[in-house]
Amino acid sequence: MAQDKFQGFQVDGPETWTQFHLREFVTKPFGDYDVDIKIECCGVCSSDVHTINGGWGPQHFPLTVGHEIVGRALRVGPKVTLIKEGQRVGVGAQSYSCLECRQCKNNNETYCKKQLDTFGAVWPDTGIVSQGGYSSHVRTHEHWVFPIPDSIPSHIAAPMLCAGITSYSPLVRNGAGPGKKVAIVGLGGLGHFGVMFAKALGAETWVISRTHSKEEDAKKMGADGFLATADKDWNVPHQMTFDLIVSTANNFGDGFDLSAYLSLLDVHGRWISVGFPEEAELKIRPQDLNPNGCLIGASHLGSRKEMLEMFKLVDEKGIRSWVETVPLSAENLSKTVQRLHKNDVRYRFAMVDYDKVFGA
Amino acid sequence: MAQDKFQGFQVDGPETWTQFHLREFVTKPFGDYDVDIKIECCGVCSSDVHTINGGWGPQHFPLTVGHEIVGRALRVGPKVTLIKEGQRVGVGAQSYSCLECRQCKNNNETYCKKQLDTFGAVWPDTGIVSQGGYSSHVRTHEHWVFPIPDSIPSHIAAPMLCAGITSYSPLVRNGAGPGKKVAIVGLGGLGHFGVMFAKALGAETWVISRTHSKEEDAKKMGADGFLATADKDWNVPHQMTFDLIVSTANNFGDGFDLSAYLSLLDVHGRWISVGFPEEAELKIRPQDLNPNGCLIGASHLGSRKEMLEMFKLVDEKGIRSWVETVPLSAENLSKTVQRLHKNDVRYRFAMVDYDKVFGA
Repeated sequence: MAQDKFQGFQVDGPETWTQFHLREFVTKPFGDYDVDIKIECCGVCSSDVHTINGGWGPQHFPLTVGHEIVGRALRVGPKVTLIKEGQRVGVGAQSYSCLECRQCKNNNETYCKKQLDTFGAVWPDTGIVSQGGYSSHVRTHEHWVFPIPDSIPSHIAAPMLCAGITSYSPLVRNGAGPGKKVAIVGLGGLGHFGVMFAKALGAETWVISRTHSKEEDAKKMGADGFLATADKDWNVPHQMTFDLIVSTANNFGDGFDLSAYLSLLDVHGRWISVGFPEEAELKIRPQDLNPNGCLIGASHLGSRKEMLEMFKLVDEKGIRSWVETVPLSAENLSKTVQRLHKNDVRYRFAMVDYDKVFGA
Repeated sequence: MAQDKFQGFQVDGPETWTQFHLREFVTKPFGDYDVDIKIECCGVCSSDVHTINGGWGPQHFPLTVGHEIVGRALRVGPKVTLIKEGQRVGVGAQSYSCLECRQCKNNNETYCKKQLDTFGAVWPDTGIVSQGGYSSHVRTHEHWVFPIPDSIPSHIAAPMLCAGITSYSPLVRNGAGPGKKVAIVGLGGLGHFGVMFAKALGAETWVISRTHSKEEDAKKMGADGFLATADKDWNVPHQMTFDLIVSTANNFGDGFDLSAYLSLLDVHGRWISVGFPEEAELKIRPQDLNPNGCLIGASHLGSRKEMLEMFKLVDEKGIRSWVETVPLSAENLSKTVQRLHKNDVRYRFAMVDYDKVFGA
């Protein structure tokens, strides 16, 4: 049987992680539930950097990264019911789970043991390695293909498919809403969505950052308050008043005092981590959790159900990603991942102008 | 105004923590809401040892410890409505909170910022240091005095006032009940209550211990299953099946692999610590919480409401502490705290025969 091929910008390994090469690659055979998508744009995620620079360990190279994909459904499999040909759709960081286990049946497919990532995953039947969104096309099971409401431009929708849902899911799963006081730690790509979503869900929303440098941005995003940890006794006036802290912090090293953050939580309040630094360890004494009986957790992406709910909220409230668009090319990908690695971004990148590379 | 005095067995400091001296001590003035209790017996808690041997830091010596107190209400203040003279009652580890803050008004008085311990706390108005239950009497605000149902012998009830409620509260606050799978880590004083209460609440109850040495005891307490961490791949068959783990572990050092325990939890399952080792740090990578989105927390004692519910459950289900009784004396207190320090106890001590020391 002839193998289907797409084109994409690939990296060959951590030693040359800033070099992208446009090549053909083999994609998995078209399945009954698959959707072929012609890609229009793709958000640039820290996961891309952690993957290609070796920070998250060995990967299958050569590899095309990118998992905040928006495009048009070009072709749908015979059993597809969720997506129509021609529809504008998105694909995020996950592209497979068994859909049969208890987790999958309870809208917890992001915690399925058989989950596969959108790029870099070895497809069990064929051994083919999945390739991401700096490509001409992507082939994805309909469960991980999400219709994008017409009101949301593609480059605005793209970063929501990973960064957005990663911030949205822990908010709704931990009760962010009217009458709740929520803090977002770190105002980066994840954090800026956290602020906008927490506010849109009706919570009193605060930002906690190192300094006041991003305070004005935070207010524009809708934050009700701002705390800078460089300020003396920054946490004291707010102790035991927060219901939820969603942390996007990616550095738990020098000067990171977890107990100061935890002291902000009301009884059984929650600290949920969505940042996954390359090397980091939280050091916790049970005594630090004791004064308020708080809980520490983490959250991984979000379910299809939540993805659709998120886009509905974005549609209804007119939420807009703060995104810098970059025309797709090998050179621009190289510059962009290096800027992201230096944290030179406010607050998200999206690669666009795919038609100039791959045709209309 | 004349000061009221009681008698008790005091320790003079960490250097001589195994030496007890029977002395008179001054108690706080009798308040409108206070209850004077003639003590019949008192459970021996690890908190006693951590306090007198200096493990929990500086204390106010000389000090009488003991906070699992059962006795008779001898006298009640003019505004007392919860307790009647002559009633058999208990006092646990907490003896004061403001009763006015949001925490207090929501049955979270154990998390009140103004809480005071039953022993070793400096009473704000007078500077008098509270003294514990190896004493003739204790004077306590009615909110922290709990009627003991007639069916429960005093020496059986005593250990429930700290160890019991410490295990009970996290079970009910985290949903232990029919259809839930619960593990208790460590079968000691706290753990043995955890097993009996989780079972009585209707949960499928497992014990996780280092070896199989206590497996027979666990089964007698009602455990449905038993896992020994010394067994190869002990956790593998049970991954992602537990809803709740209540950990009484007091050693997070060599060989303690937190991630192996966390892997047992289903999506958003919870690990709740109730053990408070003298020196311990849990090291957590957010990635360890990620495969199941689990939560880590701690729990501190339990509310008055929960204390009354616990004794109701004990009454209805005929739950019995596994307790070794020891006649009260300076010599026996010395032996008993040393045995507890060596963990030579199955599963709890209670000092009895108070009438032989203090009269009937």
